[in-house]
Amino acid sequence: MPFATPAAQVADDPSVAPGTRRMEIGAFTFADVSRDSRGVGPARRLPELVEEIALADEVGLDVFGIGEHHRPDFAAPAPVVLLAAAASRTSRIRLTSAVSVLGSDDPVRVFEQFSMLDSLSGGRAEIMAGRGALTESFRIFGYDLADYDQLFSEKLDLLLALRTGEPVTWSGRHRSPLERELIHPRPVQNPLPVWLAVGGSANSVVRAGKLGLPLALGIIGGRPADLAPMVALYRDVLARADHEPRPVAITVHGFVADTSQRAADLYYPGDAEVLNRIGGERGMRPMSRTDFDIKILPGGAYAVGSPEQVTEQILHLHEAFGHQRTLLQLAIGSVGHRDVMRAIELLGTEVAPAVRSEIARRERTVETGSPGPGANRASGLAGLPLTATEDGAVAIRHVTGP
Amino acid sequence: MPFATPAAQVADDPSVAPGTRRMEIGAFTFADVSRDSRGVGPARRLPELVEEIALADEVGLDVFGIGEHHRPDFAAPAPVVLLAAAASRTSRIRLTSAVSVLGSDDPVRVFEQFSMLDSLSGGRAEIMAGRGALTESFRIFGYDLADYDQLFSEKLDLLLALRTGEPVTWSGRHRSPLERELIHPRPVQNPLPVWLAVGGSANSVVRAGKLGLPLALGIIGGRPADLAPMVALYRDVLARADHEPRPVAITVHGFVADTSQRAADLYYPGDAEVLNRIGGERGMRPMSRTDFDIKILPGGAYAVGSPEQVTEQILHLHEAFGHQRTLLQLAIGSVGHRDVMRAIELLGTEVAPAVRSEIARRERTVETGSPGPGANRASGLAGLPLTATEDGAVAIRHVTGP
Repeated sequence: MPFATPAAQVADDPSVAPGTRRMEIGAFTFADVSRDSRGVGPARRLPELVEEIALADEVGLDVFGIGEHHRPDFAAPAPVVLLAAAASRTSRIRLTSAVSVLGSDDPVRVFEQFSMLDSLSGGRAEIMAGRGALTESFRIFGYDLADYDQLFSEKLDLLLALRTGEPVTWSGRHRSPLERELIHPRPVQNPLPVWLAVGGSANSVVRAGKLGLPLALGIIGGRPADLAPMVALYRDVLARADHEPRPVAITVHGFVADTSQRAADLYYPGDAEVLNRIGGERGMRPMSRTDFDIKILPGGAYAVGSPEQVTEQILHLHEAFGHQRTLLQLAIGSVGHRDVMRAIELLGTEVAPAVRSEIARRERTVETGSPGPGANRASGLAGLPLTATEDGAVAIRHVTGP
Repeated sequence: MPFATPAAQVADDPSVAPGTRRMEIGAFTFADVSRDSRGVGPARRLPELVEEIALADEVGLDVFGIGEHHRPDFAAPAPVVLLAAAASRTSRIRLTSAVSVLGSDDPVRVFEQFSMLDSLSGGRAEIMAGRGALTESFRIFGYDLADYDQLFSEKLDLLLALRTGEPVTWSGRHRSPLERELIHPRPVQNPLPVWLAVGGSANSVVRAGKLGLPLALGIIGGRPADLAPMVALYRDVLARADHEPRPVAITVHGFVADTSQRAADLYYPGDAEVLNRIGGERGMRPMSRTDFDIKILPGGAYAVGSPEQVTEQILHLHEAFGHQRTLLQLAIGSVGHRDVMRAIELLGTEVAPAVRSEIARRERTVETGSPGPGANRASGLAGLPLTATEDGAVAIRHVTGP
C-alpha cells in the first residue's frame, strides 16, 4: 500500500481534547464549471481538481472537501467519485464530502461508497452530512420538500446505525426497512467519521450536540463572531448529553494570493457570479464589489487576501469559536486552475504553519497566565466591519490599491 | 491533463464494423475478499486492485471491469468508486462496471457517477448493465424480486434516455417521474457506452438487439460454442431492427500463469471456493477438481492455463462467436495479488498480442480465399470437452503434471 499512516488523528477521535489538537486547515469546492461551452466544463475541471487535491496533500493541508450538487453549474453530483480519484494521488490528506445531501440520498449507498473510499485511501474518508442548501436533488430523486427536515433526520439516524458495526434493524417513513442487515465493506476507521454540517439553524446545532457528532458550521455572510453563541450552544448540548468533546469545523469563502489586491481581484468575479446566480434564483439582492470588500475586512465573513491577511482572519475565527478545523471554499465560479493551485500552495506553506504556531503561542501564553499581545483580539471584532481598527488599515489599503 | 487520447475506438462506435476492429482483451473481478479476519479484507484488497488495474493499463490491456455486489465476500458495492481510484493511475484502459445491477439502483445516480468517471478518465468510462446474478441488492434496497425483469427493463429505458443529451420526461412504476430534466455533468463520450450483460437468457439477448446495445455474454459453464446461436440471434435482431452492427463481448472465468499446471493450481481453489459458496446457497452440487479440469480443456468454459493455452482458448471463443472483446474473471476468491499481477502481465504481453495477430492472420486468409490451417477450427469444438483433439493432449498433460 502506498499510504503513510495519516499524520492527523482520526477527525472525531474524542480522546483528543479540543484545546490540545492542532488546527486543521483545508479547502473545499463544489466543482464549479462554466455553463458556457467556451468555458471550463467537467471534462477539464474534474481532472484539474484531482491535481488541486494532490497539491493540497503535498503542501500539508489536512482536509479537502467536495460538495454534492445536481445542477449544470457544479460538476460533482457524487463527491465520492472525485474523492476516490484523488485518493490514488494523495497519501495524508483527509477526503470529505462537503456536504453529502443525505435527505435525498440512500444512507446505505452513501455508507457503502464512503466505506470503499476509506479502504482506497488508507482510512482518510469522512462524510459531512447536511440537509443541503440547494434543493434540486429533492425534485430529481422524487422527494417532497415538505419532508426536508424529517428526511434528513431519519436518514442520518440510519447512517449512524450502519457505522456501528452491528447488524441493523431499522424502519422509517422514507426508505425501505432493514432487518438485521450488516452493510459491507466495513470501513477502515471505526467509526467512519460523520460530521453534521449546519448553516446556522439552532435546531441543527442542537441535533449535532445531542447525537455527539462533530459540528461543521458554514459561514456565508454577516459577522462570524455573531455565530459564536451557536458553537457555545453546541458544546453545552454535547456536555449535557454526556458526550465527549467533539471538534468544530468552520467553513468560509476564502482565497489566498501573493497580494491582497490580487486575491480580491481573482476571487471576487467568480464569487459574485455564483452568489448572484444562486441568490437571484431566490430573489436576493445582487452582491456588489463593495459588499465583497466589506466581507473581506478583518473579522468579516470571508478569508480572502494575502497569506498574512488570511492567517489573521483564521485567527479571528479561532478567537470567536475556539474551533479545530478551518475549511476555505477556494475554488468558486470562474477562478482558474493556476490561481487555485497557487492559493493551495500558499495556504499549505504559509497560512497553515503561521496559524498553527500563533495558536500554539497563545495557548502557551494562556497556560503561563501571561496575556501576550493578541490574546484579547476578539474584542476587536465588536466594531467591525466598518469601524477602523489596526487591521482596518490593511483592509482599506486593499480596497484602494496594492 | 495526464491522459493520452484513448488508443481504442469508442467501444460501441457503430462506425467500426465488427470484422475490422481489433479484438479487445481485458479482465474483471468482483473484488473478492476473505470473510476470515486473518485473510485479505477490503482495506488491503481494494488498494491492491488499483495496482492491478494500473498494471493492466501499463501492459496494454483494453478494459478492466468491476462487479457490483452487496455481500461480505465482495468489496465493491459501488464499482464506480474503485474505477475512479483507478482512473488516476491509468491513461488508456477502459473502465467498466461488470455489471451494474441496474434494477435495484437509480439510473440517475448511475448516470451521474459514470459521467463523472468519464471526465476523470478522459473518456474511458463504460457501464455494463445487468439484471444481476445475485439478489441481495433487491432485499437491501427494498425491491420485490417479483419485479426483477420489469425493474431492469424500466430502469434501462431511463438510463438510455439520460444519455441522449436531451431533457428527459419519463415515468415508470419503480422510480419517481422526471419532467424535462437534463442530468449533469454530461459525459465526455457521446453517448456514454452502455453494454447489456446477459447470462444466456434469450429474452435478454433479444432486448439488447432491439435496443441496439452492445452485448456482453457471460459464460460460466457448459460448452461456450453451444451459446453461439444466442449471438446469432442477437445479430439477427439487431439487423431486423435496422441497427448498425454492435460489438459483442464474451466474459469467462480465466487465469494465466507461466505454466498450465501453475495456472490451474492457483485458480482452482479460489474458483471452487467461490462457486461452491454461491452454488451452495442455491442448492447446487459442489464443483470438484475433475469438473474444473474439464472446464479448462480446449473449447471448454474456462480460459485457464499457460499463455499459449489461454490464447488458444480465446481463439476458440472467437471462432464460435466472432466477438470483439474478451474479458477474463482473473481475480477470484483467494487468488493472491502477486499471482494476479503476473496473470495480468502475461495476458497483456503474451496472450493479447498472440490473439490479435492470429485473428488478423485468419482474416487476411479469409480475404484472400485461402483456407489456412486453423480456419476451420470451429469444427473441433463439436466433440469437446471430452473427445481427444490435438489440443486435448495439452490439457491432459496439464492435469497430470507440468
